[in-house]
Amino acid sequence: MIGKIKFCTHCGHPVTLAIPRGDNRERHICERCDFIQYQNPKIVSGCIPCWGNKILLCKRAIEPRKGFWTVPAGYLEIGETIEQGARRETLEEACAVVESLDLYQIYNLPKIGQVYMIFKGRLKGPDGFGIGEESLDVKLVEETDIPWDKMAFKVIHSTLSRFVEERKQGEFSFRIDSTDYKW
Amino acid sequence: MIGKIKFCTHCGHPVTLAIPRGDNRERHICERCDFIQYQNPKIVSGCIPCWGNKILLCKRAIEPRKGFWTVPAGYLEIGETIEQGARRETLEEACAVVESLDLYQIYNLPKIGQVYMIFKGRLKGPDGFGIGEESLDVKLVEETDIPWDKMAFKVIHSTLSRFVEERKQGEFSFRIDSTDYKW
Repeated sequence: MIGKIKFCTHCGHPVTLAIPRGDNRERHICERCDFIQYQNPKIVSGCIPCWGNKILLCKRAIEPRKGFWTVPAGYLEIGETIEQGARRETLEEACAVVESLDLYQIYNLPKIGQVYMIFKGRLKGPDGFGIGEESLDVKLVEETDIPWDKMAFKVIHSTLSRFVEERKQGEFSFRIDSTDYKW
Repeated sequence: MIGKIKFCTHCGHPVTLAIPRGDNRERHICERCDFIQYQNPKIVSGCIPCWGNKILLCKRAIEPRKGFWTVPAGYLEIGETIEQGARRETLEEACAVVESLDLYQIYNLPKIGQVYMIFKGRLKGPDGFGIGEESLDVKLVEETDIPWDKMAFKVIHSTLSRFVEERKQGEFSFRIDSTDYKW
């Protein structure tokens, strides 16, 4: 179970963990009002922002993995599409506007209930970025300058290494992968 | 806002709708314990199960859209990948095992906070299906027998019509689309 649900969000009574009739999984159920509080996986929408052979990376200013490097990514919000989420995160974390977005990688993290949707996109220019509120640093790096041993998340490390490899080959492919590990 | 959050799931105190410090969206916040209850989009994972030129359709036994037709699909659960979710829904709703799953369509429904992930897959045989608990009927139909005017969801109607069109052309393509309408 992800997160701690102790009280009914509908009536405020303590909840019980049980399998509802007609279901086959444990859910948080309210014994007073019968409301079932479901928990479902969250989408993390992100982007690999590029300019020529360079990639834009952000050093995280917040936990988890503060001080480690990643690409702009974060929880999708209600009201936006996965592409809009990736654009928003890129703007918030790296003050950058990206164009020509293309879905490059889906990464399942079933154990922690997350699904990453990572786009690749093009920066509007080599100077079109800055240090967003949730970042300690943001830089546009050549492949040789990617801090592989200081990456925040396994899914980003893996996606980025495939990306630089495929860029050398001159052909990108969309993939779906899964892992049990976040970092 | 999707759903009604009235009480703090962490301490049971009534929540207030406000923008937390450092955020830019209204969230349900507890004034007693400061817990912020986030709401995020849900993934609906599904499958177009095929056998030769036929497609497996389910008539819904539950609301919403009871009595209307669709393909097996439902909310992704914590602990499973999007492909596992599509397989489980196909098994639950149509008692069918599918193989060679391939992601065919992502459909954003930003207004209601849903993202559909629809695979195409092959049935193990022409008789390998049945009527699941959440279905009133399940049938394997030729294109000419698809009940287009009795489809439960716009996203499935749209994905299925593209699917039969592309099958005629002999080439399938992965797409991401968005709509404000569920049916």
